Amino acid sequence: MTASRAGLLGIVVLAASLLTGEGFAAPDRDKLLNDPGVYGTFAAYRFTDDWARKEGATRIALLTVLKGVVEQHREKVVIDLYLLRGLSDHADIMFRVHANDLRDIQRFLVDLQSSAFGKQTQVAGIMHGLSKKANYVPAFPEDIKGNLKAASDPGPKPYVVVIPIRKSAEWWALDQQTRTAMMKEHTEAALPYITTVKRKLYHSTGLDDMDFITYFETSKLEDFHSLILSLEKVKEFQYTRRFGYPTWLGTAIGLDEIIEILAQ
Amino acid sequence: MTASRAGLLGIVVLAASLLTGEGFAAPDRDKLLNDPGVYGTFAAYRFTDDWARKEGATRIALLTVLKGVVEQHREKVVIDLYLLRGLSDHADIMFRVHANDLRDIQRFLVDLQSSAFGKQTQVAGIMHGLSKKANYVPAFPEDIKGNLKAASDPGPKPYVVVIPIRKSAEWWALDQQTRTAMMKEHTEAALPYITTVKRKLYHSTGLDDMDFITYFETSKLEDFHSLILSLEKVKEFQYTRRFGYPTWLGTAIGLDEIIEILAQ
Amino acid sequence: MTASRAGLLGIVVLAASLLTGEGFAAPDRDKLLNDPGVYGTFAAYRFTDDWARKEGATRIALLTVLKGVVEQHREKVVIDLYLLRGLSDHADIMFRVHANDLRDIQRFLVDLQSSAFGKQTQVAGIMHGLSKKANYVPAFPEDIKGNLKAASDPGPKPYVVVIPIRKSAEWWALDQQTRTAMMKEHTEAALPYITTVKRKLYHSTGLDDMDFITYFETSKLEDFHSLILSLEKVKEFQYTRRFGYPTWLGTAIGLDEIIEILAQ
Amino acid sequence: MTASRAGLLGIVVLAASLLTGEGFAAPDRDKLLNDPGVYGTFAAYRFTDDWARKEGATRIALLTVLKGVVEQHREKVVIDLYLLRGLSDHADIMFRVHANDLRDIQRFLVDLQSSAFGKQTQVAGIMHGLSKKANYVPAFPEDIKGNLKAASDPGPKPYVVVIPIRKSAEWWALDQQTRTAMMKEHTEAALPYITTVKRKLYHSTGLDDMDFITYFETSKLEDFHSLILSLEKVKEFQYTRRFGYPTWLGTAIGLDEIIEILAQ
Amino acid sequence: MTASRAGLLGIVVLAASLLTGEGFAAPDRDKLLNDPGVYGTFAAYRFTDDWARKEGATRIALLTVLKGVVEQHREKVVIDLYLLRGLSDHADIMFRVHANDLRDIQRFLVDLQSSAFGKQTQVAGIMHGLSKKANYVPAFPEDIKGNLKAASDPGPKPYVVVIPIRKSAEWWALDQQTRTAMMKEHTEAALPYITTVKRKLYHSTGLDDMDFITYFETSKLEDFHSLILSLEKVKEFQYTRRFGYPTWLGTAIGLDEIIEILAQ
Repeated sequence: MTASRAGLLGIVVLAASLLTGEGFAAPDRDKLLNDPGVYGTFAAYRFTDDWARKEGATRIALLTVLKGVVEQHREKVVIDLYLLRGLSDHADIMFRVHANDLRDIQRFLVDLQSSAFGKQTQVAGIMHGLSKKANYVPAFPEDIKGNLKAASDPGPKPYVVVIPIRKSAEWWALDQQTRTAMMKEHTEAALPYITTVKRKLYHSTGLDDMDFITYFETSKLEDFHSLILSLEKVKEFQYTRRFGYPTWLGTAIGLDEIIEILAQ
Repeated sequence: MTASRAGLLGIVVLAASLLTGEGFAAPDRDKLLNDPGVYGTFAAYRFTDDWARKEGATRIALLTVLKGVVEQHREKVVIDLYLLRGLSDHADIMFRVHANDLRDIQRFLVDLQSSAFGKQTQVAGIMHGLSKKANYVPAFPEDIKGNLKAASDPGPKPYVVVIPIRKSAEWWALDQQTRTAMMKEHTEAALPYITTVKRKLYHSTGLDDMDFITYFETSKLEDFHSLILSLEKVKEFQYTRRFGYPTWLGTAIGLDEIIEILAQ
Repeated sequence: MTASRAGLLGIVVLAASLLTGEGFAAPDRDKLLNDPGVYGTFAAYRFTDDWARKEGATRIALLTVLKGVVEQHREKVVIDLYLLRGLSDHADIMFRVHANDLRDIQRFLVDLQSSAFGKQTQVAGIMHGLSKKANYVPAFPEDIKGNLKAASDPGPKPYVVVIPIRKSAEWWALDQQTRTAMMKEHTEAALPYITTVKRKLYHSTGLDDMDFITYFETSKLEDFHSLILSLEKVKEFQYTRRFGYPTWLGTAIGLDEIIEILAQ
Repeated sequence: MTASRAGLLGIVVLAASLLTGEGFAAPDRDKLLNDPGVYGTFAAYRFTDDWARKEGATRIALLTVLKGVVEQHREKVVIDLYLLRGLSDHADIMFRVHANDLRDIQRFLVDLQSSAFGKQTQVAGIMHGLSKKANYVPAFPEDIKGNLKAASDPGPKPYVVVIPIRKSAEWWALDQQTRTAMMKEHTEAALPYITTVKRKLYHSTGLDDMDFITYFETSKLEDFHSLILSLEKVKEFQYTRRFGYPTWLGTAIGLDEIIEILAQ
Repeated sequence: MTASRAGLLGIVVLAASLLTGEGFAAPDRDKLLNDPGVYGTFAAYRFTDDWARKEGATRIALLTVLKGVVEQHREKVVIDLYLLRGLSDHADIMFRVHANDLRDIQRFLVDLQSSAFGKQTQVAGIMHGLSKKANYVPAFPEDIKGNLKAASDPGPKPYVVVIPIRKSAEWWALDQQTRTAMMKEHTEAALPYITTVKRKLYHSTGLDDMDFITYFETSKLEDFHSLILSLEKVKEFQYTRRFGYPTWLGTAIGLDEIIEILAQ
């Protein structure tokens, strides 16, 4: 069994680089992650009790199935995988999936759930959002605009946090100018952390029970904590009706590492 | 097994056109979908773990049972079927059922749940509403009334969203004139999306833990997002106590496609 | 099996008339349903997955057990049975049980849950209330008092709705006169529906997490919807802190019909 | 089996009087139930589906195990047992346990849950409180103090209700004199029921998600309902943020009766 | 079996002192528990129904696996183990884990959950926080600073309570001076309990759905209750939006004792 496990593991590791952030070769990954009008879905799963009872070799075989499903859809969707186990309450893994058409994301997740791998999982939660052009930044002073262009610190950002947000009706009732003034204060509070905490905003109004999904990557979790604390102190935060529930905290580690961990 | 599967599939595909939106031949579909005084029930189900363990051929056989139950009731109820899996949290499929008498809907759903197919599912949620004549529109200016008659864009509208709404006690305490003024503002905010987002309103007060079920169909999900965002900015939204919880997002794809997907 | 099923069915149908609303012969049914100081318990159950797997004959045998338990207790408690399946979220059947002593209701439900039938069910929810003399009516003008005596429309009222209500602390802090004035407005709003929607009020304060259980019977569900909508528009509704959660909607159909349905 | 059942039952009944309220011989029961500084734990359990499938004889054997666990701990903890089944939502039995040291209560409940009996149950809920000297009574006028000493009506009080309460931050921010004035009004509202409804207060702040556990015993459930209704009408009630959720309603019936019922 | 059980028990007891508070030899335990910038994770688990069905010897073998996992990680993380069973609702054991890097905590918990022991458990809840330098104390008068240095009473503190806290947006909107004034009042209210109730604060903003995790150890649970009651009376408490939900109450008893208890 050790031999066959090694064999299976070999195949998997060989293919794994196709998925990891660095080695992913899909031509439009950068475009999908940076363009407006792209859908982003966060789908978290937990393993069934049955998974725990499988032998290591079976689990490796199931993980190659996962890899296969990912391969099948990589022409249309960009897929990132995170390990939530040990850090989040009732979820083990989370997919972040980007595509121009939400139906392509549905097709991937339906295939995933119907696969031999998916049958060992249960949905912990699914949230959808849409990338859009910055709403308030165009009206900001030039110095803030300049500061917002600061490059992120190089190197891996292993921690990932996903926080859904719902604003109050009072927020949306404010005129654009008043909201812009508050978002300027919000942005200024965030600026000190711009190089160590990478942020991405997804607009969810109507698509889900929230207005925004905020996504963060960092290697300095304490900076991330300080960033959120700063954001809770600005006036705009008083117009927040839901913050978290759930907060998903995980780590971005290559598929090969995740396979090693989950094959245990 | 491939042969028998092909055989079963053939039978199913043959019959499937009876159910799909386009091919549905029931005489009163249009009437039931457009008349006031018609009941609309949204019933979402998820598959049991047992379903995942069935072989493809068994699943196809079970799906023909589903088709049979639908056939049996099509004289009294109009049934639409949506795929929620991959887009909504804890539901795989959703039925929208219309009838003049809610008991006919109950009879269909009881038969469905008692069938061999239904035994592989669990109720994710059931919500009821009633279509009614427009309450505020008669008092609107003629130009708005005219704009409201604009035809929907032709072509399929694959995305479907269902959002339950509960108004505050303060809303209902307002006089009709004040509510009409606010609903005029609400309607004006919605007008730009009238051709790309199709809406239908169900009144639920007393029938369920909500006042309205709002149902949307679109091929342009981003327009739908913009529509809801616009509606959150008008004054009437401040009288909303529940919006979503759940939001059901799915796709309207023919029964034959759903069978292909679920038979996997 | 068809034969033995027919046999079992025969026995059941024979006995079923003992339980149905019309045929129930217990001497004090009217008294228990109309007197003050009587306890009313609403107990909803759903079937376990195991139930679905039983054969029809087994299910019929289990339903005769249910009938037996009902028989055993009919000297002390008055029992009504409703079908919630297909109309309510996570419940299949609901019992409404009246008795002068809540312990007699407990004895019935304990026996029910311990029976072979009960072992195939799970509790979906239990709520208790107490019938009391009208609190505000004696202070109403004579014309309203007269109108309240209008007889209900004859004929069956197949739809049943149960809505728990909790008032705010502010409501209870109002003096009796102020509450009476508001309840007069509430009652006037309800009067147009007095012949088509039958109501019964149970007082729950302390007995459960609510102040009232409101119970409705109607054949005109649209009238019931209009009634609740009218009640949401009066001032007294602003003192309501919980309305529904759950709303139980079902149909009152004789035990023999329920057995036919559940035996499928 | 009837014989062996009778035998087992004999043993159990013989020992049961050790536990019932009347026959309990532990030297300090009265002290533990009346002294300040004593911990009171309310632990409710429901039976697993497995329990329902056991034969009567097995269930009786398991109930003798329960009795054995109770025996083992009766030197340190005082144990009362109530039947919630049929009256409360998701619990079948409830233990009320008193001890000077909460660790002794934990030891009993750990042994209970680890026993063959406990393995057939799931925790429905656990709440802790502490008895304390009256906080406001010393400042009350002498006539109220006198009335509070009225003896409870003799005879059994079969109904038991447990209601957790959390006060608002505003309540705790009031000065002692203001709170005393409101508690005087609260107490006066409760006085008419002092002989028919027995009350005991447990202080939970910090020990659990509530400030108080209120425990009631009565044979006149309608009086209990009127008592709570009166208490909801005084000003102090407006400072209540949680009342119930859950409300546990059950009956205090001797262990031998409970065994008879559960052995069915 | 008694012999093999004794043998297994011997091995376990031998190793157990490595984990217990007193005997733990890891060089940086004190540093990790007292330094700022250290992550603290609270992870609670409940046993599956399967655990209850295992024989004592099997459970002891599984507990040695737990010990092994703890051993493997003790160079990077400091682990405390508490018994929640009997005192908290839906959890049996709780780990408090400290490390400089949250990924080391994740690695430990992933290994734990993947181990033969972990497979017998389900996650009841996971919460994360960060130790930080005191925020308000530097601005306090010297006498309070001095009082805060009072040594804790010697001897074991068997009771442990964990309470998550979320402040309102209004709190964070106050300026530092106003918050310092309120925290001074908060601290003065806590001072009388400084020797009998040990406190540790973890900052969670952004890392979880709360702002703080408060952790308490005491041998005098009544003092702890009085402490929280005092804290609820100061003005700062009015800015608390979540307090508990859950409150985890347990006992800190050595691993050897826990093994004895869980092996039953």
